Amino acid sequence: MSALEALKQDLEGLQIEDNPQIVKQKSRDFFWYSPVLKGQLDDVTADLVVTPKTEAEIIQVLKACFAHDVPVTTRGSGTGNYGQAMPLAGGVILNLAAMDKVKEIRAGVVVAEAGAIISKIDDETRAHSGQELRLHPSTYRTATIGGFIAGGSGGVGSINWGGLRDLGNVLRLRVLTMEAEPQVLEMTGEDLHKVMHAYGTNGIITEVEMPLTAAYDWVDVVVGFDQFMDGVQFGDDLGNLDGLLVKEIAPIAAPVPHEYFLRHQKFIRKDQSVVVCMVAPFAMDAFASFVGRFSGAELLYRSDTASDAEKKGLPPAYELAWNHTTLRGLRVDPSITYLQVLYPFPTQIESVRKMTELLGDEVPGHLEYVRFDGKITCFGLPLVRYTTEARLNEIIKLHEDNGCPVFNPHRYTLEEGGMKQTDAVQLAFKKQADPKGLLNPGKMIAWENPDYDFSSDKLFLFPGLQRG
Amino acid sequence: MSALEALKQDLEGLQIEDNPQIVKQKSRDFFWYSPVLKGQLDDVTADLVVTPKTEAEIIQVLKACFAHDVPVTTRGSGTGNYGQAMPLAGGVILNLAAMDKVKEIRAGVVVAEAGAIISKIDDETRAHSGQELRLHPSTYRTATIGGFIAGGSGGVGSINWGGLRDLGNVLRLRVLTMEAEPQVLEMTGEDLHKVMHAYGTNGIITEVEMPLTAAYDWVDVVVGFDQFMDGVQFGDDLGNLDGLLVKEIAPIAAPVPHEYFLRHQKFIRKDQSVVVCMVAPFAMDAFASFVGRFSGAELLYRSDTASDAEKKGLPPAYELAWNHTTLRGLRVDPSITYLQVLYPFPTQIESVRKMTELLGDEVPGHLEYVRFDGKITCFGLPLVRYTTEARLNEIIKLHEDNGCPVFNPHRYTLEEGGMKQTDAVQLAFKKQADPKGLLNPGKMIAWENPDYDFSSDKLFLFPGLQRG
Repeated sequence: MSALEALKQDLEGLQIEDNPQIVKQKSRDFFWYSPVLKGQLDDVTADLVVTPKTEAEIIQVLKACFAHDVPVTTRGSGTGNYGQAMPLAGGVILNLAAMDKVKEIRAGVVVAEAGAIISKIDDETRAHSGQELRLHPSTYRTATIGGFIAGGSGGVGSINWGGLRDLGNVLRLRVLTMEAEPQVLEMTGEDLHKVMHAYGTNGIITEVEMPLTAAYDWVDVVVGFDQFMDGVQFGDDLGNLDGLLVKEIAPIAAPVPHEYFLRHQKFIRKDQSVVVCMVAPFAMDAFASFVGRFSGAELLYRSDTASDAEKKGLPPAYELAWNHTTLRGLRVDPSITYLQVLYPFPTQIESVRKMTELLGDEVPGHLEYVRFDGKITCFGLPLVRYTTEARLNEIIKLHEDNGCPVFNPHRYTLEEGGMKQTDAVQLAFKKQADPKGLLNPGKMIAWENPDYDFSSDKLFLFPGLQRG
Repeated sequence: MSALEALKQDLEGLQIEDNPQIVKQKSRDFFWYSPVLKGQLDDVTADLVVTPKTEAEIIQVLKACFAHDVPVTTRGSGTGNYGQAMPLAGGVILNLAAMDKVKEIRAGVVVAEAGAIISKIDDETRAHSGQELRLHPSTYRTATIGGFIAGGSGGVGSINWGGLRDLGNVLRLRVLTMEAEPQVLEMTGEDLHKVMHAYGTNGIITEVEMPLTAAYDWVDVVVGFDQFMDGVQFGDDLGNLDGLLVKEIAPIAAPVPHEYFLRHQKFIRKDQSVVVCMVAPFAMDAFASFVGRFSGAELLYRSDTASDAEKKGLPPAYELAWNHTTLRGLRVDPSITYLQVLYPFPTQIESVRKMTELLGDEVPGHLEYVRFDGKITCFGLPLVRYTTEARLNEIIKLHEDNGCPVFNPHRYTLEEGGMKQTDAVQLAFKKQADPKGLLNPGKMIAWENPDYDFSSDKLFLFPGLQRG
């Protein structure tokens, strides 16, 4: 009997899927935003998808997989773009979609199971007490809270609260280890960094406790500019207004808004750059007053005064931003891809100008203003009109040579997609929590190859990927 | 019949006080924190106190005073420290204490009459929907919202929201002009700056619409440090943590905390500097984790785990901060006074160190971390062991020579207490709204003497003050 057959026996009574077509489909995340990852990961598939309904069932899965040495890759909704949830060594996909309950809501706090959809959590906290989560990705309506914490970094709301990594943006995680007898750990404070943004390589997050903030009927706003850099300055100034509450500020260069935001096209001229914002309803007088300070700024759309006819069929503003900008580009032009860039404070505007001048329409600008270590600065998710991998790497190098670090979304390892160094805390915890190295194999270079030279400029290739 | 007697006739039916003892008492604000203002303003008194109950009654007062050329100085609770509410030319004190109703509460917004006590507003908004005002002075339990807007600048909460001057921190003001037929104006957006922080010199604020934020049971925390500068660094780092929600960060140098915070004395060693904080209850795990990063930091007191015996008789943390620090000093040592200083970003820590080294225990440090134009920096309300006015001015000059602007709390004019220049918007609006110059005379130099030379280094003396 193969390990897999033995495993299936041990999992009897659980919800299991082993139809290869469906398993392959459930093995995929949004890695295909990257032509590089698409080439590398397109054939990757697990052997089995297990969908536990309770923490006890997860423990049953982990014990069985540990006993039979079967890899386990945990999955929320699979909305990650770095291949976070791709099961490079096959084995089991642990699908947490059925662990979706909101368990407790109180002032400033929500407790939910890891598989709860982010917008569903907000639906409940809003109805309960006018509260909502601080941060969410543009995949608000599909992504799970556990997946966001394990594989995301920030998003809508980061202009107020920084990123998930910031102390206080996650309050508590309940985590299972991958051992003969899985332990149940409760983490708070600095300890949280052991498992956050570790792609599920060193523990299974089953329950999260997150801070809430006041929920409002955010007004979607699109402001138009003839010059992209004027929109960049507008976004920067807006982000630095301490009293004007916004949840999102995204400058996006022409011709992206007109060409790719098809539902909003009617509001935007072809040569117009825009800043997409979400503004607190009670701040709209102040916001309009602020727009008036910019001679070239044009309030193209605001959802609070738009007619029903105008609003019909429009996606929410956050689905124009973050990686939905890329997605909308991809839908019109499948050859498009993107980067993730940090323009460090205090030279963010100069850096953006420099890169815009250097790369022009080959890399149309898309910024996301955020708080970062207490300062307002911007991340970029510029689109890239992709030609070759060599040119893509050149563009990345150009950013880095100009002082703009790239979180390379064309790499599936934690290190290469992040700060290009091993996170010692994550690695140390993996040694303890996943001694056999069965959790999401191939994603942490430091585990696979402790002597790996990150300065080598080479691409790490997980040996497991060559098995097929 | 004198103008005053004619006025009294016109005001029949309104609540009027003309007993000189009581009028003098009701004419005083907290100017006496300054030995300089104490010398200048101690004999100042109005002739009459009128306490209207409705906006219609205020209009009646304004019409009558306009007709008889009687000055009108508007007053909330008189908690200002710059002599904002001192009736330099006598006349009527318009006491808005009876205009104290909360009129509407909705998501993110409260509408209240100008004389509503700030903590009373919060009591209602908390009970209604778990909301509270963004900002309040340390005189939370006595100050009125209208007085705060007309004479204050920021306070507790400014670490998150900046100051009142920041677009969005006041949503709407209803304002009466001082004309034969007073106009009722509704101001929003940039227009608000016409009357905000104008000491009531160019209009009477009768109703305010303010933004609300989520209310929490803030945890009062005192962290101890052997070195003041370690507390300063702690406060700066804490303020720059984007995800850790606090409402107040005030580093205060030894021996102030032990010597002047009498109720908290038992928690604080004589040589200990402290940082007084208000922390969201759900952030306390993260906060404790953060304190652990500082080898010298000692968590001296936290209200969430303190016993009833420990908490007995303690004032709330915000009554150790802002100008309550000064007040507690004055109660123990009546010779003490203070300054208001800005340590501009990004050199705030160096500036504080420099001034601390230069002035030592003659000017014990007290900082208030705030957001200022999008950056975290600190204001200072250092105590001053007062000797002479000449030395006080030397100390002020020393700050300014070292790049730290002083908002001089020993001056009763808008200009000298502020940016040492005329606010053209306020002046223009006064010409329109108070053509006879009857509102709070003597406070706007630009009105009294349009040719005044602010670079003269002289002290402006309102002629009216010499009448006595």
